[in-house]
Amino acid sequence: MSTIKQTPDESDPSVKNIYQDIRDSRKTNYIGNFWRYLAFDSSLLKNVWEDVKNLMVKDTIIDKKTKEMIYMAVSITNNCSYCTHSHTATAKKLGMTQEEHSEFLSIVALAAKTNQLVNGLQVPIDEIFDADRQD
Amino acid sequence: MSTIKQTPDESDPSVKNIYQDIRDSRKTNYIGNFWRYLAFDSSLLKNVWEDVKNLMVKDTIIDKKTKEMIYMAVSITNNCSYCTHSHTATAKKLGMTQEEHSEFLSIVALAAKTNQLVNGLQVPIDEIFDADRQD
Amino acid sequence: MSTIKQTPDESDPSVKNIYQDIRDSRKTNYIGNFWRYLAFDSSLLKNVWEDVKNLMVKDTIIDKKTKEMIYMAVSITNNCSYCTHSHTATAKKLGMTQEEHSEFLSIVALAAKTNQLVNGLQVPIDEIFDADRQD
Amino acid sequence: MSTIKQTPDESDPSVKNIYQDIRDSRKTNYIGNFWRYLAFDSSLLKNVWEDVKNLMVKDTIIDKKTKEMIYMAVSITNNCSYCTHSHTATAKKLGMTQEEHSEFLSIVALAAKTNQLVNGLQVPIDEIFDADRQD
Amino acid sequence: MSTIKQTPDESDPSVKNIYQDIRDSRKTNYIGNFWRYLAFDSSLLKNVWEDVKNLMVKDTIIDKKTKEMIYMAVSITNNCSYCTHSHTATAKKLGMTQEEHSEFLSIVALAAKTNQLVNGLQVPIDEIFDADRQD
Amino acid sequence: MSTIKQTPDESDPSVKNIYQDIRDSRKTNYIGNFWRYLAFDSSLLKNVWEDVKNLMVKDTIIDKKTKEMIYMAVSITNNCSYCTHSHTATAKKLGMTQEEHSEFLSIVALAAKTNQLVNGLQVPIDEIFDADRQD
Repeated sequence: MSTIKQTPDESDPSVKNIYQDIRDSRKTNYIGNFWRYLAFDSSLLKNVWEDVKNLMVKDTIIDKKTKEMIYMAVSITNNCSYCTHSHTATAKKLGMTQEEHSEFLSIVALAAKTNQLVNGLQVPIDEIFDADRQD
Repeated sequence: MSTIKQTPDESDPSVKNIYQDIRDSRKTNYIGNFWRYLAFDSSLLKNVWEDVKNLMVKDTIIDKKTKEMIYMAVSITNNCSYCTHSHTATAKKLGMTQEEHSEFLSIVALAAKTNQLVNGLQVPIDEIFDADRQD
Repeated sequence: MSTIKQTPDESDPSVKNIYQDIRDSRKTNYIGNFWRYLAFDSSLLKNVWEDVKNLMVKDTIIDKKTKEMIYMAVSITNNCSYCTHSHTATAKKLGMTQEEHSEFLSIVALAAKTNQLVNGLQVPIDEIFDADRQD
Repeated sequence: MSTIKQTPDESDPSVKNIYQDIRDSRKTNYIGNFWRYLAFDSSLLKNVWEDVKNLMVKDTIIDKKTKEMIYMAVSITNNCSYCTHSHTATAKKLGMTQEEHSEFLSIVALAAKTNQLVNGLQVPIDEIFDADRQD
Repeated sequence: MSTIKQTPDESDPSVKNIYQDIRDSRKTNYIGNFWRYLAFDSSLLKNVWEDVKNLMVKDTIIDKKTKEMIYMAVSITNNCSYCTHSHTATAKKLGMTQEEHSEFLSIVALAAKTNQLVNGLQVPIDEIFDADRQD
Repeated sequence: MSTIKQTPDESDPSVKNIYQDIRDSRKTNYIGNFWRYLAFDSSLLKNVWEDVKNLMVKDTIIDKKTKEMIYMAVSITNNCSYCTHSHTATAKKLGMTQEEHSEFLSIVALAAKTNQLVNGLQVPIDEIFDADRQD
């Protein structure tokens, strides 16, 4: 159950072209629900796909598995169930082992714990963290 | 300005011992405010330091710079200013370049954007993401 | 599956009266689950309904469609699935077109993205934003 | 620095009356900034003060110290710095000891940690938690 | 549907021992899904169980029902559905009445409302809240 | 205090060109800190500015004042202090009156309150909200 009616097919040429690019770039025929629902506005679909393609699908400075784990960390913290599922699945495909997955979860859980302690204590920021003082 | 009175010195032996372990493990004489404020309860200080030491300071499966970037992602998403400052400073010390920092920020920003779109559209989860179906 | 047992009927007079007011004010016979579950405490039901009635149902300064879009923005950001569904449905009834819905989603997504960048960069606030300096 | 110009005095009779009620109910002459800023709209001030008075200032079922600790838990999790400071100060006035404060912080930190693990693992809800099955 | 394959049985001795401790400490044979999914990494299971046991299951300074209500407040604010269900069920077992549940919900709702007002107004923190000034 | 060293000048031509476009599009000479800090990576600056320009600065379907209020709602809910200040200032410039500001704050506060109640009660979604059933 979604807030929009699902796009029923790929008859819109602008949607079809983007789907083709997704399929080619990702080397898979499968188009996930995220893209199928974004397709209710082809310009939004295009805007998001270009961001994802340039940053997550193309080779960049940070390796792909790490990029997915960073994405997972944000998605888990925002409690986005769909996003957590999709990026965990992708990280696994890119080689994230069960041991790495477990250690990753330990880190995001510890971060949430210490974030909460800092908020509760209202810890003042050390001057030493000032980027202008680091070299 | 904090919700507790700052611990004024290191006269409590249980606090002193943990501070010594922090100094030895991290190879620095500096004790950050987070630890100084946690010291208002030495058992809480001990509990948190052991988690941080075992997971973030010791060598584990995921490399240290990546671990800090995962920690940063959670802290930024939770909008914990202290935590963002302290873990960004640590990641830089561990070799995170300006290019990596910038790419990292682009990823956490994109993740927040797509998390929000998924929430707004209420996208149903693809069956293909089911961990039991992946092998 | 809820954390309380669903209120089974409208036999409680104080609940019945509020339901009648909801039906009259909204010109519909349908009472949504939110009100049915709140009814487990009729004073809480009354408190919330009066807030909603005065602010969202009555004519006020901001037009009704815009009010629902503001409500949607909060609900999406808080990742409240029920609230996102119910307020999107209401906004549509009040005339939100598919084009407006799409542009709205683009705005809340962009806001989440730039919020995240500001948190990651820890951008200092410009003095020019001070309300006391604006006139 | 605020998003509105601070209300400069208590010349507005509707504001003055509410301030008097705050002073009488709380048995203090001090009016905190929260109320001073809310006063930019006296009807909003009235709405919020009545909620706070009925729920937090008056004697109700849950004891006052516990009510403040519940309020603190929400404020810390939402990372509301002002709210964390003000409700921690109130809880202390109501008798929250340093030992209780410390244990409280340990609980909210543990809750954040396990919330994050549940989100990361996407744990399905046990049928046994269904309120309709509990009696 | 979870991000990991469910642990199928209790054949791993380290998992079995922790499950036995959970059963003994909680005086129930039932092991919730949270523990069954955490068991995919027995060291993480052990770490979390020890925190929960020491803080939530053992007798400490704050009474058990209040501890669960604090836990609920964090879980609701983080919108963790599983956690809200499980800790509400536990609080009820520990004696939380329907009247307390209702008042609790009114408090967490009011806190979210005033947190949001403070954020919107950007209210400056009163000097009087400074812990160093309180005695 | 930021996590990066502030960009000291506009000597980088790619930054200078974007700043010129910001100045021209917004009809102001002032460049806010957000843009000055984003400039540490000119490609990120360009990506964000193009999104903001196309959606918020250009005339689109939703009027500019409403767009800023939607942006404010997300920023307040995410507790992004900088963003709340900057978008409130912009909304005021675009004509948001004090009465509208106050009503807006009442709505975002009520939304946070009812979001929290829905999370606490775990209200099931009405079938009637299904977009596929609406026409």
